[in-house]
Amino acid sequence: MRDEWFIRGNVPMTKCEVRAVAIAKLELRPDSILYDVGAGTGSVSIEAALQMRKGRVYAVERNEEAVDLILANKKKFHGEQVTVIHGSAPESLVSLPAPTHVFLGGSGGKMEPVIKLVLEKNPSVRIVANVIALESLCRILSLTKALGLSAEVVSVWVARGERKGNCHLMKGQNPVYIISMGGADQWEER
Amino acid sequence: MRDEWFIRGNVPMTKCEVRAVAIAKLELRPDSILYDVGAGTGSVSIEAALQMRKGRVYAVERNEEAVDLILANKKKFHGEQVTVIHGSAPESLVSLPAPTHVFLGGSGGKMEPVIKLVLEKNPSVRIVANVIALESLCRILSLTKALGLSAEVVSVWVARGERKGNCHLMKGQNPVYIISMGGADQWEER
Amino acid sequence: MRDEWFIRGNVPMTKCEVRAVAIAKLELRPDSILYDVGAGTGSVSIEAALQMRKGRVYAVERNEEAVDLILANKKKFHGEQVTVIHGSAPESLVSLPAPTHVFLGGSGGKMEPVIKLVLEKNPSVRIVANVIALESLCRILSLTKALGLSAEVVSVWVARGERKGNCHLMKGQNPVYIISMGGADQWEER
Amino acid sequence: MRDEWFIRGNVPMTKCEVRAVAIAKLELRPDSILYDVGAGTGSVSIEAALQMRKGRVYAVERNEEAVDLILANKKKFHGEQVTVIHGSAPESLVSLPAPTHVFLGGSGGKMEPVIKLVLEKNPSVRIVANVIALESLCRILSLTKALGLSAEVVSVWVARGERKGNCHLMKGQNPVYIISMGGADQWEER
Repeated sequence: MRDEWFIRGNVPMTKCEVRAVAIAKLELRPDSILYDVGAGTGSVSIEAALQMRKGRVYAVERNEEAVDLILANKKKFHGEQVTVIHGSAPESLVSLPAPTHVFLGGSGGKMEPVIKLVLEKNPSVRIVANVIALESLCRILSLTKALGLSAEVVSVWVARGERKGNCHLMKGQNPVYIISMGGADQWEER
Repeated sequence: MRDEWFIRGNVPMTKCEVRAVAIAKLELRPDSILYDVGAGTGSVSIEAALQMRKGRVYAVERNEEAVDLILANKKKFHGEQVTVIHGSAPESLVSLPAPTHVFLGGSGGKMEPVIKLVLEKNPSVRIVANVIALESLCRILSLTKALGLSAEVVSVWVARGERKGNCHLMKGQNPVYIISMGGADQWEER
Repeated sequence: MRDEWFIRGNVPMTKCEVRAVAIAKLELRPDSILYDVGAGTGSVSIEAALQMRKGRVYAVERNEEAVDLILANKKKFHGEQVTVIHGSAPESLVSLPAPTHVFLGGSGGKMEPVIKLVLEKNPSVRIVANVIALESLCRILSLTKALGLSAEVVSVWVARGERKGNCHLMKGQNPVYIISMGGADQWEER
Repeated sequence: MRDEWFIRGNVPMTKCEVRAVAIAKLELRPDSILYDVGAGTGSVSIEAALQMRKGRVYAVERNEEAVDLILANKKKFHGEQVTVIHGSAPESLVSLPAPTHVFLGGSGGKMEPVIKLVLEKNPSVRIVANVIALESLCRILSLTKALGLSAEVVSVWVARGERKGNCHLMKGQNPVYIISMGGADQWEER
């Protein structure tokens, strides 16, 4: 989905290409239960919901302006499967149904307690985290080692051609690290 | 979907991350009609099919070994929506139903006649092409200018962490250019 | 050399890392004669000059503000080997001594006549061009084929860690294509 | 300098473009004293030496096959300024003259004691380290914080066009992290 399709405001947003890779790494199934922690504009929640026939998405966000954007985007894209939760992680996650999948888009300092909590709720949960700070990358790698989890790390770097006159100037975006762990190793029938 | 889930043989395959971006750029709808031209292992056909409830995919491939792989993957993933066509483009496309979406994964020399043909069949078709040769990139940019089409170009570069002992060594993959053109500018209700 | 060491104004400047690669690709020798065409702030001219004991650099620039910057940088870095020429290429190059090396940093539309002229002056000249527009890349590839020259193309993508609090956020710069052609194939004794 | 100019054997080698950036980050002066720790084929030692009129390079390498390559390259390129030392770091560095610059190309596990030792020898030494493992990157970032040093981190990603028929296929190399710290903030007259 194009970035400009979403109602955005001033809230930072995972860009189209990185969002596509992160959602692919989630390996959602038609009936998955996804937590989108630090949901921002809700773009990951919405795009994930549209790929699931019967799944549910819990979009957790503490910033009030962002919560309004998620609600607006939910309405625009008919994202009935998305439940918007105004609150902080991990506290707000405690009472939710156990997740099969978790996306961490920007909860920098709270990654550790969130990962621990969702693993308690479902030891075979699939977790995907996007980070751009090297220190967050290092912290999450340490944490996965401490927890005995095997993590896959990919770095995704996108440049977009920007029209200038008759030319395409390639504009580099920020490289994003996408860390994935847990979940099923095999393809499961649907 | 993970690359290792697909049955592969020796046929080159669009890698997981790039496949995810290319499919996102297609902007498929639940009832789209997609041509996957130069379908290779069929990984794009399969992953696209699994995202559409009622759509159809025509996977066109001239290499016989690759056709067998597509059929095997179709079976493994229950891709009933995928029709496998053993033949060359653009000839094999002539008699097919008009496409709403076209993916060009590797038909180097034939891009020009394929693009012209599918535009005749559906002037508002959405076309996404992946290229890795600079000369193919240049040819497709020239063609879009000659045809008066506005093309978006993104370059996607992925590095994957490879486990070595206790470390992740980042291994760079080949950068891929993804060119998109045509289709609807607005999100359409489903 | 660090970007912030140079006196800069509002003139665009080849960044430190890309400048280092471009100068390495020039394969300068202690007594080379370098044209820096579209010299901008003069950063390539200065850094190249400081690597040559007896060489000469002709920094050609048509923009007056940029010419003043080159002169200021020449003074700051004691770049006595640099001759600053206020004028347009290829006209301004006609009367200069034949070059052994040519750097094209930004002369978009004029690349073709400049390359033809310097090849006339010295058929074994080494030429390095930096481009960021895809269309410039395509044009220079076509030109090298038409002239029967073998070109090396590298794409260089740099992200710089930007301090934010206690973290390094990786900020992607624009990818640059560096095209090199001509010159000696073997290392020559000095 | 081109990679193929060096005598190489089976020893891993910092590639041309990354070598150029790393040497630029060293900010060598005509009379610098450089330690090249884990010198491999000696390509950094040689290229650095050729840029200094009166400097000295100590190429430290524990692998015997690599030591022979450094000696062969020293001979080929007339690198009289390079002293080759067969031994391990940090032990082999103890008796050497204090360095003004240190390059760490591959001493994974030994980075910490090496950095501590060279800082003792010269508190204002300039240190540049190339790493490709994320865990090494994390360790060096932690170390610089513990030592109160401000580190610059850049990630450099290079793709090289490989000729195939009439085309250039872009082949991605591995991204390298280049970490720089210490040294003079201002350009110093020569």
